[in-house]
Amino acid sequence: MQRDIFGITIGDSSGVGPEILLKAWAGGEIRHPVVAYGDMDALLFYNDRLSLGVPLRAINSPAEYRPGELLVIDHGIVHDPSPGILSRDSGRAAREYVVSATKAALAGSIRAMVTLPMNKEATQLSDSNFTGHTELIGEICGAPDVTIMLASDQLIVTHVSTHMSLANAIRAAKKDGIGAIIRLTVDAVKRLVPQPRIAVAGLNPHAGENGLFGDEEIREIIPAVEWAKSQGMPIDGPFPPDTLFYMAVQKKKFDAVVCMYHDQGHVPLKLLDFEGGVNVTLGLPIIRTSVDHGTAFDIAGKGVASTVSLIRALDLAVRLAAQ
Amino acid sequence: MQRDIFGITIGDSSGVGPEILLKAWAGGEIRHPVVAYGDMDALLFYNDRLSLGVPLRAINSPAEYRPGELLVIDHGIVHDPSPGILSRDSGRAAREYVVSATKAALAGSIRAMVTLPMNKEATQLSDSNFTGHTELIGEICGAPDVTIMLASDQLIVTHVSTHMSLANAIRAAKKDGIGAIIRLTVDAVKRLVPQPRIAVAGLNPHAGENGLFGDEEIREIIPAVEWAKSQGMPIDGPFPPDTLFYMAVQKKKFDAVVCMYHDQGHVPLKLLDFEGGVNVTLGLPIIRTSVDHGTAFDIAGKGVASTVSLIRALDLAVRLAAQ
Repeated sequence: MQRDIFGITIGDSSGVGPEILLKAWAGGEIRHPVVAYGDMDALLFYNDRLSLGVPLRAINSPAEYRPGELLVIDHGIVHDPSPGILSRDSGRAAREYVVSATKAALAGSIRAMVTLPMNKEATQLSDSNFTGHTELIGEICGAPDVTIMLASDQLIVTHVSTHMSLANAIRAAKKDGIGAIIRLTVDAVKRLVPQPRIAVAGLNPHAGENGLFGDEEIREIIPAVEWAKSQGMPIDGPFPPDTLFYMAVQKKKFDAVVCMYHDQGHVPLKLLDFEGGVNVTLGLPIIRTSVDHGTAFDIAGKGVASTVSLIRALDLAVRLAAQ
Repeated sequence: MQRDIFGITIGDSSGVGPEILLKAWAGGEIRHPVVAYGDMDALLFYNDRLSLGVPLRAINSPAEYRPGELLVIDHGIVHDPSPGILSRDSGRAAREYVVSATKAALAGSIRAMVTLPMNKEATQLSDSNFTGHTELIGEICGAPDVTIMLASDQLIVTHVSTHMSLANAIRAAKKDGIGAIIRLTVDAVKRLVPQPRIAVAGLNPHAGENGLFGDEEIREIIPAVEWAKSQGMPIDGPFPPDTLFYMAVQKKKFDAVVCMYHDQGHVPLKLLDFEGGVNVTLGLPIIRTSVDHGTAFDIAGKGVASTVSLIRALDLAVRLAAQ
């Protein structure tokens, strides 16, 4: 039987993606079979600039995988990367790598995909309809209802909504949507933790204190939790947010927290482990993890970007794929 | 010159307040001159029940202070406390202790007040207009615009709003109110940290990303920060919340964070230090600090409640009073 191959997209070539992959390879940190979706010239540029000496070889298909070299599905778009400078070509290329890797994952020629950062502004220079990395993958997969799970060693969080205003996030916290995110969370966390205990956070201070500080708990969240319990899911809540994260992290009472809005989960997770967080996209027919940082144009090409998040994203993809 | 005396209200006698004060005294943790505002019979009850052996003496005025005994301004309301059981008398008494101590602080007979927890439900049994501990003190002081500063060893946060729904908190985040809280924060933090650096958090994910995820930053928060800067205050922001707390705590870039809503500050602070947080009421003409926990009826009378928050609240009152 063929080994599982993991695809890594190198992201925007003006950012830190290519050098992070090369640094991780050069440092012996990549301990699973991978192929890169990117541009050979971009990787050669950073390999040379940072004197990393990574052996690179272009291939046409993940089936050509063999150990000992960093294998590259070469898209031939970027030839002369400009670290830190917004580029139409780099933005367009980053999108193409993701399209290729997603299709490869759907076809089963890679077991999972791990993505390095795109730059939204750069990609929009050639694709004005581009709204985001995760949305693009969801679209290719025909899966419109995707959400982000953010995982560190200490905490796993999912979100009922992410990139929208807080006012819209409140309006988006509806029973059916919350129930759907609870189900996605339970399914994903079960792959990582046997017999997980999962908590749902309240939206309001003190989880509304019986309606005194907002009634979203009573109208939407409690019904969603009750529904999930009736389906046999290992779920409890809603809990007052300011106690819940302490209980989950310090008291280890819960393995994951379903959050009602972006910052509710992002603030505690990043406070504890800024660099080590990994994104997992839930709701896709494929496995996709992502580093939890951006293109970091300010340090691109300097060789100082951390490989921690990539390694954790790859490791998490491997764990999710093991099921 | 007479020494500064600090008043400690014992809170609801059905809760953990009285025993925490006695335990702290018995353990030698109280290193400043204090008088208790409470009921002698309630303190005798817990002193006996938990075999703490604290020497207690009733006095009529803080001017009678002398070391060696725990001195009590006796209100003569509660005679037979019932640990863990909601009581009209205990609720009413807890309110009276606060009234007495606030008046003493206003009159200058105590330098500051430190409060142990009241039970809102119990106090409402005799005072249906009672909305909260802090509101009561604000009312007695004629200071309607008070807010809570929450301080631990690692983080200081203040809040533009606290006990209201998240939807109302968004509506409450207006330029003038934010400016007022920034000023209160700067004034208070300057008493604790020389040359403080204070940050303002955004309301929306990524602080709105230039209006893409909400415009409260553009309409209200940025103008408030610009106003505060024009007044010479050491302030910066608004910053994306999920980066800001990491920068403040782990990178030590800021001494305090002005938060837009209750959980924005409470989640990171309690996650890091659940027991050690201290409340400081800002906007009063007196100094008032408070433990950051409730009456904990479930463990009242068992002698297991932690004294950490009381000791930190007293120490913080002493530091604020030293200016």
